[in-house]
Amino acid sequence: MAAAATAAALSPATFLRLRPLSSAVHFISLHRIPLPSTTTSPPSTFLHRFCSTISATLSPIQTQPNSKKVGEFRKKFKIADVKAGSDEGLELLGRSLVVQGWVRTLRAQSSVTFIEVNDGSCLSNMQCVLSSDTEGYDQVESGLVSTGASVWVQGIVVNSQGSKQKVELKVEKLILVGKSDNTFPIQKKRVTREFLRTKAHLRPRTNTFGAVARVRNALSYATHKFFQENGFVWISSPIITASDCEGAGEQFCVTTLVPSSRDHSNSPVAAIPTNGDGSIDWSQDFFGKPAFLTVSGQLNAETYATALSDVYTFGPTFRAENSNTSRHLAEFWMIEPELAFADLDDDMACATAYLQYVVQYILDNCQEDMDFFNTWIEKGIIQRLSNVAEKNFVQLTYTDAVDLLLQSNKKFEFPVKWGCDLQSEHERFITEEAFDGCPVIIRDYPKEIKAFYMRRNDDGKTVAAMDLLVPRVGELIGGSQREERLEYLEERLDDLKLNKESYWWYLDLRRYGSVPHAGFGLGFERLVQFATGIDNIRDAIPFPRAPGSAEF
Amino acid sequence: MAAAATAAALSPATFLRLRPLSSAVHFISLHRIPLPSTTTSPPSTFLHRFCSTISATLSPIQTQPNSKKVGEFRKKFKIADVKAGSDEGLELLGRSLVVQGWVRTLRAQSSVTFIEVNDGSCLSNMQCVLSSDTEGYDQVESGLVSTGASVWVQGIVVNSQGSKQKVELKVEKLILVGKSDNTFPIQKKRVTREFLRTKAHLRPRTNTFGAVARVRNALSYATHKFFQENGFVWISSPIITASDCEGAGEQFCVTTLVPSSRDHSNSPVAAIPTNGDGSIDWSQDFFGKPAFLTVSGQLNAETYATALSDVYTFGPTFRAENSNTSRHLAEFWMIEPELAFADLDDDMACATAYLQYVVQYILDNCQEDMDFFNTWIEKGIIQRLSNVAEKNFVQLTYTDAVDLLLQSNKKFEFPVKWGCDLQSEHERFITEEAFDGCPVIIRDYPKEIKAFYMRRNDDGKTVAAMDLLVPRVGELIGGSQREERLEYLEERLDDLKLNKESYWWYLDLRRYGSVPHAGFGLGFERLVQFATGIDNIRDAIPFPRAPGSAEF
Repeated sequence: MAAAATAAALSPATFLRLRPLSSAVHFISLHRIPLPSTTTSPPSTFLHRFCSTISATLSPIQTQPNSKKVGEFRKKFKIADVKAGSDEGLELLGRSLVVQGWVRTLRAQSSVTFIEVNDGSCLSNMQCVLSSDTEGYDQVESGLVSTGASVWVQGIVVNSQGSKQKVELKVEKLILVGKSDNTFPIQKKRVTREFLRTKAHLRPRTNTFGAVARVRNALSYATHKFFQENGFVWISSPIITASDCEGAGEQFCVTTLVPSSRDHSNSPVAAIPTNGDGSIDWSQDFFGKPAFLTVSGQLNAETYATALSDVYTFGPTFRAENSNTSRHLAEFWMIEPELAFADLDDDMACATAYLQYVVQYILDNCQEDMDFFNTWIEKGIIQRLSNVAEKNFVQLTYTDAVDLLLQSNKKFEFPVKWGCDLQSEHERFITEEAFDGCPVIIRDYPKEIKAFYMRRNDDGKTVAAMDLLVPRVGELIGGSQREERLEYLEERLDDLKLNKESYWWYLDLRRYGSVPHAGFGLGFERLVQFATGIDNIRDAIPFPRAPGSAEF
Repeated sequence: MAAAATAAALSPATFLRLRPLSSAVHFISLHRIPLPSTTTSPPSTFLHRFCSTISATLSPIQTQPNSKKVGEFRKKFKIADVKAGSDEGLELLGRSLVVQGWVRTLRAQSSVTFIEVNDGSCLSNMQCVLSSDTEGYDQVESGLVSTGASVWVQGIVVNSQGSKQKVELKVEKLILVGKSDNTFPIQKKRVTREFLRTKAHLRPRTNTFGAVARVRNALSYATHKFFQENGFVWISSPIITASDCEGAGEQFCVTTLVPSSRDHSNSPVAAIPTNGDGSIDWSQDFFGKPAFLTVSGQLNAETYATALSDVYTFGPTFRAENSNTSRHLAEFWMIEPELAFADLDDDMACATAYLQYVVQYILDNCQEDMDFFNTWIEKGIIQRLSNVAEKNFVQLTYTDAVDLLLQSNKKFEFPVKWGCDLQSEHERFITEEAFDGCPVIIRDYPKEIKAFYMRRNDDGKTVAAMDLLVPRVGELIGGSQREERLEYLEERLDDLKLNKESYWWYLDLRRYGSVPHAGFGLGFERLVQFATGIDNIRDAIPFPRAPGSAEF
């Protein structure tokens, strides 16, 4: 074992390829790295191990022959580890390190060649500088190291002469890992985001989509952190549901009755089992009845909130709406917290704290990406988000909001009157103009324009609903206190001619230890739009689904 | 502002209801808490605010009339905050606090009544002790405070006379929040887990399902923590896909062509649009072609890994398999990491480190729940998991594994020979007997029994696949290095008669800067089973979906 450990220490893997200059040559000599051929033949496994140590192969263990230990996992060394520090890499001056990534650009000057390499760990590229005597330079000369190609580069961190970065890599050795066919569609010239949607498999290699992916990831993690730190339990609400609670219409049907061959010519409608009257025989379907994709996990979340006190969902939800807009997706992720022993004020407080937390999180943790959005996507976005993170949110009732709109003397496309749902133009006026960029929560909406489960207020006309409005986006969060009183809930179901028996389990929550509870929902891609300034929601999710579009 | 802050400080909300004994009376007098009636009428909003402060109502801000600040959010005080500390609540002796939760049991003795209250924050109940002169005791006498009812209890933390807990609550005041109808199906007598599956909306109120929910939550959060701390980016792979890459069969069709009315009698098959030949006219479907629920996010994850270096998915996946077993779900969550610049050794190292991390996380963070499983669900589970967290994992090749099985002289139901897939009995023999409870990774499987995308080994017969086997469960993780060489991948698609054009975008990843990469998949509910000892996978997810079953 001791011998194995020593051997491992002498055999640093990639993540350890960070050495004082003096030992660099020695270090490299430890590695057998045959030069890959420059033909079109695939790169061989020239790197025996990328980030695990190789102690694994040394010591048979247990009593079984030929068995070995599994190698140790260590975090991979990435460009962000150089660039993300406060000194942008200066602390690594003189060190030898290895960078693995994709070529963004290549600039040949008279005596040196600059290759910008990006590994997706951050927006910044590593500028790699080669001269004609650098090992592997022949591959640069041959033209194979082109935009989109993948490379393994080993060099010394030196001060950069350029103004764009503090350090660069003086390359000692370059290996072409995978060449890039010259049809690579993402060349340096600007390409439109519309075009990139048709290349959803390659668009994360661009600055914009790499930054969106990282900020989206940070928002997701911050969401989990916020709720976990506050004692909420993540629950997975079901995706497929045959429950009758979700309301009809605008749902996707999930079935195994329809011939599911992908061969279009092989889907005879006659193969669908029918009853005598020509209707579909649902009893033969997978779930024995019609099943659909969920539109919300809220009702399910309520069952867990009334057992565990505070829960949240974070999962995909679906709308079969035929809306081809920049704000709608057929498939999107939703965050739905549900708080027990809580009322609408608690709900608003939680929504506010959540939003401020995740916004502050990306301002703190995604500075480089946010600077990029601030420069290239939406000027002023950092200030806008800082306002959200720092300002006190305002609340006012729907009734007061309507008064405010009526008194504004502003011409709206949709006239305002009490009882109407607020339109985007109204919401944006309130948050952007009336409250000067401050997020606003409107509460206590007329019951006619809100869902059956919202708690009736004492006035009999309104319900304890709230919508959180933010500048530029409008409604970002919608929530309510839920009707916890069995009689009122049943009355409301009757009013709306909904079948109470379908809601048996939802009503059970009011039969057995009912508690005041409240929650809200937030469309995650709307949050990504809000946080990045990206115009079209199809650019806020890796693989957008919309009418006519479910590629990749 | 200063005035508002002071007012807030003087108006503690629930979470702050933790006061030295001396101030308890004063504190309570700050609250107007009318006693709810003991009739069946719903509880009124007797608690004005649950966890946010009420500074909100004090200071109109901006220039708009009637607007107010939103209250501040603070973490709710829960029973876990008493019980989870190392001294099990002793540090809170003499303090006044409020507990809100559901009555598990009520025991009336001659002079005192014990009520066990649970709020789902931990397994432990808070034992609440009332005497006949306690405020609210009349509601206990009336019989309304029964199992399943919700209560608000305020009292002083005192030493417990019982052996089961160190502290209990000497109740000063109890309020019945919501009574429990006497049909409440989860009474103290043991109920089977089969029965509880029919009450999926109430089962989280039991010890077992509460503990499963908390451990599931911890495993989920530990998953995110592990990958985030190691520089992986979470990506959401699509749920609905019309891509032809996923292979046919065993997928759910997602459609809006089928009449989606939930009224069974109203689904005329004649309403489905057809082509002239009687086949379904898919061009009229929502996505313009047949669409399905995803079976894996891997191929999509590869597109992001070859841009961002290391990514992971964590989302639902689906199988329309008609398997009514204790190990299969039609809808389950999968975790699929994908590592760029990585080979099979890196992949095994990552899978091992991941599994050890999440197991150690629940051992450290869910001690009470794990003790419960150890006592009631699977004796010895803590030792089994500790072994996994601490032992070196073993690797051996498929070929060596087959030799080992052949030489074992053990009678297997399925005979072993090179080229056959390993059955559960083989896998369990290897990890439980041959390696004495140590997790084992089998690698380098015959290419014929593995997927098209796995990397061909130099022997031409095997591929760089790996399965991680654990005691009791068998295969928990399956992974592989992916074929990054375009020619070999195309050859494999040809061999398997798969349509290369369908894979255009997947092949593009090998055309443009291909890199060695690897990943694995883990069914999250299998992990929950493994970590809790729960026999049936339908008890490892809140709302299980299986043939004939998609209720709730």
